[in-house]
Amino acid sequence: MDWNTYLDQNQARFDAELMEFLRIPSVSTAPERADDVRRAADWVRRRLRAAGMPFVELLETTKHPVVFGRWVTGDSKPTLLLYGHYDVQPAEPLDLWESDPFQPDERDGKLFARGSADMKANLSTLIQAIEAIAKTSGALPVNLLVLCEGEEEIGSPNLPDIVRQRKDQLKADFALSADGGMQDASRPSLSVGLKGIAGCQINLRSGETDLHSGSYGAAVPNANQLLVQLGATFHNHDNSVAIEGFYDDVRPLTDQEQAAIAAIDASDSDFLEESGTFELWGEPGFSALERRWTRPTVDFNGIWGGFQGQGAKTVTPCEAHLKLTCRLVPNQDPRTILGLIERHIEKHTPDGARVTIDRMKGSAHPFSLDMNAPALKVAAAALQEVYGAEPLYVRSGGTVPITGVFKQELGLDTVTIGFARPGSRAHAPNEWFVLSDLAVARRSYATFLTKLGEI
Amino acid sequence: MDWNTYLDQNQARFDAELMEFLRIPSVSTAPERADDVRRAADWVRRRLRAAGMPFVELLETTKHPVVFGRWVTGDSKPTLLLYGHYDVQPAEPLDLWESDPFQPDERDGKLFARGSADMKANLSTLIQAIEAIAKTSGALPVNLLVLCEGEEEIGSPNLPDIVRQRKDQLKADFALSADGGMQDASRPSLSVGLKGIAGCQINLRSGETDLHSGSYGAAVPNANQLLVQLGATFHNHDNSVAIEGFYDDVRPLTDQEQAAIAAIDASDSDFLEESGTFELWGEPGFSALERRWTRPTVDFNGIWGGFQGQGAKTVTPCEAHLKLTCRLVPNQDPRTILGLIERHIEKHTPDGARVTIDRMKGSAHPFSLDMNAPALKVAAAALQEVYGAEPLYVRSGGTVPITGVFKQELGLDTVTIGFARPGSRAHAPNEWFVLSDLAVARRSYATFLTKLGEI
Repeated sequence: MDWNTYLDQNQARFDAELMEFLRIPSVSTAPERADDVRRAADWVRRRLRAAGMPFVELLETTKHPVVFGRWVTGDSKPTLLLYGHYDVQPAEPLDLWESDPFQPDERDGKLFARGSADMKANLSTLIQAIEAIAKTSGALPVNLLVLCEGEEEIGSPNLPDIVRQRKDQLKADFALSADGGMQDASRPSLSVGLKGIAGCQINLRSGETDLHSGSYGAAVPNANQLLVQLGATFHNHDNSVAIEGFYDDVRPLTDQEQAAIAAIDASDSDFLEESGTFELWGEPGFSALERRWTRPTVDFNGIWGGFQGQGAKTVTPCEAHLKLTCRLVPNQDPRTILGLIERHIEKHTPDGARVTIDRMKGSAHPFSLDMNAPALKVAAAALQEVYGAEPLYVRSGGTVPITGVFKQELGLDTVTIGFARPGSRAHAPNEWFVLSDLAVARRSYATFLTKLGEI
Repeated sequence: MDWNTYLDQNQARFDAELMEFLRIPSVSTAPERADDVRRAADWVRRRLRAAGMPFVELLETTKHPVVFGRWVTGDSKPTLLLYGHYDVQPAEPLDLWESDPFQPDERDGKLFARGSADMKANLSTLIQAIEAIAKTSGALPVNLLVLCEGEEEIGSPNLPDIVRQRKDQLKADFALSADGGMQDASRPSLSVGLKGIAGCQINLRSGETDLHSGSYGAAVPNANQLLVQLGATFHNHDNSVAIEGFYDDVRPLTDQEQAAIAAIDASDSDFLEESGTFELWGEPGFSALERRWTRPTVDFNGIWGGFQGQGAKTVTPCEAHLKLTCRLVPNQDPRTILGLIERHIEKHTPDGARVTIDRMKGSAHPFSLDMNAPALKVAAAALQEVYGAEPLYVRSGGTVPITGVFKQELGLDTVTIGFARPGSRAHAPNEWFVLSDLAVARRSYATFLTKLGEI
């Protein structure tokens, strides 16, 4: 039997396995979900073992374990390092979901669940593709290493150290990340760029205690007002970032990179509709696609202070908070950017306020793949075979922190192949994945592995 | 027995009654506390009956009942309308309390409990003073009417209508509000001014759903950022209010009013220390006392949007909210001010945002008492007798909405006598009232009632 037939015959079981995986609420940022996160790690470990991988273990960290696997079948074969993550974003706000985020629900050919697009469907189909090849050919076309973490959604605070510590065990020729998506529903995509990330929480205090807004409000600072005042200094009127030096290290795109972006058929109006926002926004002089792929940002992910309940409470609050993250592009450095942010805050903290800054655990360098890398060419050939169409070379505004680490520490170029469609609501309520794409994903991963063995 | 002796002999019982009253968490803004609010209303009703008041009933409203009492003992006597409220502010944030807000705790001669300063101690001592006079003299020196509401802390949405509907039953010569405090620990105070209030909640949306800050953030609006941008337009750099027309109707103080304020010994540095803030704040050209008593404000009581949990969630939020209230001075009109706010928001709403505004239920006109009003002179004489010191004529940045209504609808000047000391943390964690002031309050109220009968 060839692996194609095996995939067809086992499709129902494979789909059911994904449902099982999606039912585990592996929210890495929530301390009360730690046991569930570990259950998801163990699910991956057992699934890799069942696929035939002889050696799979959980590497402990200060938080969530890393699944580490190794399957070496011949010294002459190339070695591929596979990367994925088994954790998911929080599902809140729950009232905006049309079905339980952790009870996968099929509607209109889509599977709705937290983690479906990002990235449990990709991860499970990749493992299933490995099983299909192994069970039908007896041996793998390549040697495999697996690193699957449970902390991607909190910025991968531990995986980089593990990579550094285990350099010897991680020698490979190429890396494949399954944490990606598609630019177009009908043509395959290959990612050649990811943004980096850095962030912090600003904690502003104006005094020791909340005060009566009548007795005090006219004569004492209001923490909410001071935070609003400070927050308003982060962007210019034209929506560009106002932090001094923020754009200094942004490298201009090469001609080849610009041509690849120009080849994408993406209209601002389609993106507006898909986003569900009322108007587009961003730096002047760039299309929405250019902003998303190539321009760095400062985003206010959360703000809070004072009374949020029903009705009124006439309080002058003494503390307020702001969570912000920056998406970074080559060659911005996360630490440099955090330094600039801290200097900006210091300079713009209003009179009457005291500010502390908690740096976000985990940060990531932006990632850029040479468009002539050999593994990228194999991936392009594999996807062309499955889809019957040439792949698009795309970028993402998202972040997969580990790709930068693989390059820096292991000298590896990471090819990203993933199947989340545009608009699939990763990180948002009602996240989805197209059911029929599960079979396409399995076939694509198997083709890539097979072709990689022929290099 | 005279009422003085009666007060002494019943002090322990009277104090215990207050503890019982403070244990009822009558938080008027919290829907889940509605039953407790009603229990507090019933406590007041029963307590007035026990003092001897022949007629006391609960007037139902769309929310919390008003306690209405009447005790007419002679047509030739003057009639006094008593005003108080039995509701309290929410106790949140609970973790900042050193003892349970609804289990009164005695420490260092102070009674710590939500509602102790605002205003259950005043209300219970006033009722106890009435009892003392009634039980020892057989008849009251004045006819009494009582209006005690459970919605003062949410802006008295229903009491004004009740006053309008029952004008005939509320004919009186003077009004006494027990909702007040002291300017100085050693000298009595009489209030000649209160601020008005108006407020709203701003609800800002930038789209239909929260979005991934990587895939979307660079090209779509972020509701938190737009709200911060809008919020920053409400104040000028010198801390004055930037809403067009906001100060237009502010009436300059009379010479007599200015002299009364100048007579107050209040230093900015004492106020700074007492407030627990790091620096003072406010409009330039005014002392802290002038700001608190005579200048109108816009306060941001609450702000929230996006992710507030532990860790990070890289979301571009689609909605954010801001609660604000204005404290108003003569002759600002709450409705006019809300209109100006709405026009301001309309003018400053950033591109990409849609804003709806919920007007706060309840608003109040500012109140100013003629310093030559007869009841004010009686009150001054009564307090001078108890304290052996001339009273100070003070104002408050706080709001007692009903005083404006009593003037407008019933033609009554309201004298305010209350005993909350400066710094007693009304509306804030660890609210307190000095235990030994309970006896002083009872004696003061009884002296006032007696002297008023001699007019």
